[in-house]
Amino acid sequence: MNEQIIDNLVDQVVAKIHQERSFLVEASGRHIHLSQEHIDSLFGKDYQLTINQYLSQPGQYASKERLTILGPKGALHNVVVLGPPRSASQVEISGTDALTLGLKVPVRESGDIKDTPGIMLINGNKTVCLEQGLIIAKRHVHVATKDAEKMNVSHGEIVKVRIESDQRSLIFDDVVIRVSDKFATAMHIDYDEANACSFKKGIRGYIVK
Amino acid sequence: MNEQIIDNLVDQVVAKIHQERSFLVEASGRHIHLSQEHIDSLFGKDYQLTINQYLSQPGQYASKERLTILGPKGALHNVVVLGPPRSASQVEISGTDALTLGLKVPVRESGDIKDTPGIMLINGNKTVCLEQGLIIAKRHVHVATKDAEKMNVSHGEIVKVRIESDQRSLIFDDVVIRVSDKFATAMHIDYDEANACSFKKGIRGYIVK
Repeated sequence: MNEQIIDNLVDQVVAKIHQERSFLVEASGRHIHLSQEHIDSLFGKDYQLTINQYLSQPGQYASKERLTILGPKGALHNVVVLGPPRSASQVEISGTDALTLGLKVPVRESGDIKDTPGIMLINGNKTVCLEQGLIIAKRHVHVATKDAEKMNVSHGEIVKVRIESDQRSLIFDDVVIRVSDKFATAMHIDYDEANACSFKKGIRGYIVK
Repeated sequence: MNEQIIDNLVDQVVAKIHQERSFLVEASGRHIHLSQEHIDSLFGKDYQLTINQYLSQPGQYASKERLTILGPKGALHNVVVLGPPRSASQVEISGTDALTLGLKVPVRESGDIKDTPGIMLINGNKTVCLEQGLIIAKRHVHVATKDAEKMNVSHGEIVKVRIESDQRSLIFDDVVIRVSDKFATAMHIDYDEANACSFKKGIRGYIVK
């Protein structure tokens, strides 16, 4: 075989491996996780969130409930509450949203809310002032335990993920891997990141070493 | 010398080369370029833009003039007009802005506005309807001719640029190189891209092969 044929074969094998190891990428809009205590304060005692649509992660759903988030410079209206309730409330926004609210918001992993800004949540005339919990989510890949070995990744690892698009391909660095048997394998990015790579629904990413 | 010392030296040399070849990255907010004809329509016959602040590119400036951009779903207010006037008017926004306006906007190089959406520009009760010219700017590096050789790049080349930040390092692919002796060397990204890499003023990028 001449060199060109070999090069071509190598390219095909690499493309096949990329395809096999690729995963769905999803863009997460701004959203709110609430503790039952805060659900009670905002919607009434022992209120249950109304399931509107299940999400890719098993058991997680978008509820029909919407809240206003109020910051010193502006507000975000009609922000979706995700369920089920969590032990601590947390609000996830984009960098663009942080400018709208007028707050300096750190990039954090979900759950890591120590020393993050607080924020006001409003439902009509019911309000809750979170003392902390406002974050820009660190980009991450949820990996189902059964997929972790195939993808050659482990929980907590930082990887690079390539996204291919028509005009804005890129490689996200600082992507954290989160492995659990409760996860479906999918990468989550925010809308700023989605726009930065010309995200379209169904787009896939793969890890580059 | 043992291997560790050699590795360390190699790392230092690579870091030094990256530093030498690095360039300033700037985040461009939404902005408008106008032809003199459209300046006349929006501000009055033979109106001259008022220089507010010179930009990194020689001769280019932010004017004091501001316009409203109106789309089918929403408006963007107080959008800066850049000068000097150009042969054709052009409006550059982010993907987030496109959602606000309610328009599907392509990623294009500056000046490449054929078959792009039109948009309405408003100054008080004066309006101009552009028939085309609304784009999301393709990320690019302005390279001064004298720097092109040192950076080992040529006009029109597509390169990858690494940006390092605390929590959101990434490698932008699909970055177009534009070389001119009228340019100062600097990379331009929009606010979505800036948020996707935790941009801070003064941040630098370097080309990775």
